Amino acid sequence: MSVRIVIIGCGFGGLEAARALRGAEVQVTLVDRTNHHLFQPLLYQVATAGLSAPAIAAPVRHLFRKQENVTTLLGEVVAIDPAARLVRFADGGSVPYDHLIVAAGSTHSYFGHDEWAPHAPGLKTLADAFEIRRRVLLAFEQAEKESDPARHAAWLTFVVIGGGPTGVELAGTLAEIARHTLPGEFRHIDPAGAHILLLEGGARVLQAMPEKLSASAQRQLKKLGVQVRLGARVTAIDAEGLEVHAGDDTPPYRIASRCIVWAAGVAASPLGQQVAQATGATSDRAGRVVVEPDLSVPGHPTISVIGDLAAAKSWLAGHEPRPVPGVSPAAKQMGRVAAANILRRLRGEATQPFRYHDYGNLATIGRNSAVVDLWTPWRHVEFSGWPAWMFWLFAHIYFLIGFRNRLVVLIDWGSAYWSRERYARVVADIEPGARDA
Amino acid sequence: MSVRIVIIGCGFGGLEAARALRGAEVQVTLVDRTNHHLFQPLLYQVATAGLSAPAIAAPVRHLFRKQENVTTLLGEVVAIDPAARLVRFADGGSVPYDHLIVAAGSTHSYFGHDEWAPHAPGLKTLADAFEIRRRVLLAFEQAEKESDPARHAAWLTFVVIGGGPTGVELAGTLAEIARHTLPGEFRHIDPAGAHILLLEGGARVLQAMPEKLSASAQRQLKKLGVQVRLGARVTAIDAEGLEVHAGDDTPPYRIASRCIVWAAGVAASPLGQQVAQATGATSDRAGRVVVEPDLSVPGHPTISVIGDLAAAKSWLAGHEPRPVPGVSPAAKQMGRVAAANILRRLRGEATQPFRYHDYGNLATIGRNSAVVDLWTPWRHVEFSGWPAWMFWLFAHIYFLIGFRNRLVVLIDWGSAYWSRERYARVVADIEPGARDA
Repeated sequence: MSVRIVIIGCGFGGLEAARALRGAEVQVTLVDRTNHHLFQPLLYQVATAGLSAPAIAAPVRHLFRKQENVTTLLGEVVAIDPAARLVRFADGGSVPYDHLIVAAGSTHSYFGHDEWAPHAPGLKTLADAFEIRRRVLLAFEQAEKESDPARHAAWLTFVVIGGGPTGVELAGTLAEIARHTLPGEFRHIDPAGAHILLLEGGARVLQAMPEKLSASAQRQLKKLGVQVRLGARVTAIDAEGLEVHAGDDTPPYRIASRCIVWAAGVAASPLGQQVAQATGATSDRAGRVVVEPDLSVPGHPTISVIGDLAAAKSWLAGHEPRPVPGVSPAAKQMGRVAAANILRRLRGEATQPFRYHDYGNLATIGRNSAVVDLWTPWRHVEFSGWPAWMFWLFAHIYFLIGFRNRLVVLIDWGSAYWSRERYARVVADIEPGARDA
Repeated sequence: MSVRIVIIGCGFGGLEAARALRGAEVQVTLVDRTNHHLFQPLLYQVATAGLSAPAIAAPVRHLFRKQENVTTLLGEVVAIDPAARLVRFADGGSVPYDHLIVAAGSTHSYFGHDEWAPHAPGLKTLADAFEIRRRVLLAFEQAEKESDPARHAAWLTFVVIGGGPTGVELAGTLAEIARHTLPGEFRHIDPAGAHILLLEGGARVLQAMPEKLSASAQRQLKKLGVQVRLGARVTAIDAEGLEVHAGDDTPPYRIASRCIVWAAGVAASPLGQQVAQATGATSDRAGRVVVEPDLSVPGHPTISVIGDLAAAKSWLAGHEPRPVPGVSPAAKQMGRVAAANILRRLRGEATQPFRYHDYGNLATIGRNSAVVDLWTPWRHVEFSGWPAWMFWLFAHIYFLIGFRNRLVVLIDWGSAYWSRERYARVVADIEPGARDA
């Protein structure tokens, strides 16, 4: 009987780990609580009505139909049991493992203010994206019906909290929608008059980028019509707006807004806590599990943690180990290394430490607007504007899973580029909490 | 100040009425409770994961962006007030009218058994389609996990109730999914072994078609792997299955099924009842408002009712008036006539009676399978199989609103035709009642 490897989560890390086990004499069980792999870098396009959900989500089962050593299971993992070597599901079922890879990813964090969640949804899942799409589109509809000037202004004020890549993409695209997609379609309001605010607590947007590119991104945002407020800490959020603290010298002020999006904080999946408890591993402040150089959990060589759930370091002989950032290339690389290390163990070989290959960083802002920070083998390249946008576009389409998705995304973007229309402007149910498209 | 025309509902009837008023010196307000026009003939494709929602739903606001006399309003109409000439919304607002066209359409009817609704969803809205998609895809997932043979069989038994066009399309497509899309992707079950049942209370499927085509449709269904049961009346539905009465001579029997779809009954929107009460009009057994030959409500020349909400007759000099069927071409024709009659009234001319031009009937069953019953000016044509399917395909793509949708639908179908894959196999939230894609 062959060795049973269970992988929890089919994001970039889990998917890559399962792929790396192709052809190996092992039985892989890939468990996820959804039925699809989500191409998260384009999720903001679903939230802003530029793409439909199926364009960026592929059924996991379909992706592995030809890799016969992979079994796909739909289920929500609530616990792991290292003594019994079992993964336990919410519905009471369980699945045994010889080796386990935990790749459950991250969720958004409100820094202890979970009461903000209903007023400022984050963007991690398709359901999140539909909720944001619903709120954005309905805010313009409500504004069209509203005659009271103050309430009218609140409906047309959109606030994105957090100046990382997701916040920048969302704010830039909201500005595009307001300035270019919707004008001409309303009779009582001018959508181009909408206020798009991007609030960042730190001193610049895109802090993972070089300062020059942060400044460029900020200029490009301004050009698209986004008001960027730096050093702006959010101290309260409710259904009518939010309160912002701009520094110790100034009193907090209020922004009336009916559409607030949270792109500020990320925390590890709650499963990280569970893994740490079950194995005695430590977890860091963000809830990530601290792992060995080979990505296994200390004292549990049969359990590896990868991706956003791992507090991992990059090891290179002669250098200080460096923390690995929570980005998708790192998750994919960890997936490959964790899988390879399991195969090494099965062959009786020594495992190898994880080394993160950083190829750089890129972020888009809007039509023709992006910043790219590339580490090529030859030199370090920074560029922005239209060339960066083209680079971003083709990089993302290249990495999209499945040929059909690539083609449809290209068509959608091609037509959106020329017409500035966003075709996925569909809200299935108007009531909050109902189902959307 | 120009004349105010309010249109309730932006299905085929309302949309066509608004379009027919292009260029007229009137102010049109188009009210709907969703933000999109839905191409309902392809809704079953969304329910069966062949198309994404945005491919068949276009934002109403966008469709009328260039028709400047149209204002689009999102709102749920709860009442009309003929004395005050007001349409009242659920949120307390109202909008005044000089002429009113009510085109609120139909909903599914459980023939007095509303308790069946949670166990057998119908297919009218995008939200319905997502719910059916969720149930179909998750039934296969549950079967893959289930070891108990009886429960396993119940997960793999799909029952469609009602042998009209929607029921036939759904059953045929479910058979396609089970036989051709999913095989090879599961490790524990054989999806091709799923049972697809189509229950029809009457003596044949597609009763609006000639008998020869009904028989052909039934043969094509059988070939696709659908079990058709005629004369089968459903007497109970619960979470575990349903009870069927096959005639007075046989006792009722049970079918264990975890995925039941309701395609049997249609009733007028509840707004029909409201209009009848407010105007003193009569409504028929299905809740439709009985209208004058010119589609206005008796005694209320400023109010017209069209589409599925109207119990209308087709008038042709020298012939008995004939009831108009609840199909989209009839709704579109009524929309045009109602709009033209309002303009005639405004010019002081006599209104004209509605005459329904019946061009025939078509229904698809699955890949390469359809039936077509055409009334051309020259002769009556019936055909089925592959030519009928091609005809159905191009007719539907031709009538799809918006060029982009047509292109994407063509691509989706082209790729689905060759690969037999269905790309929209995405369930956003696994929990029932949650949001889907």
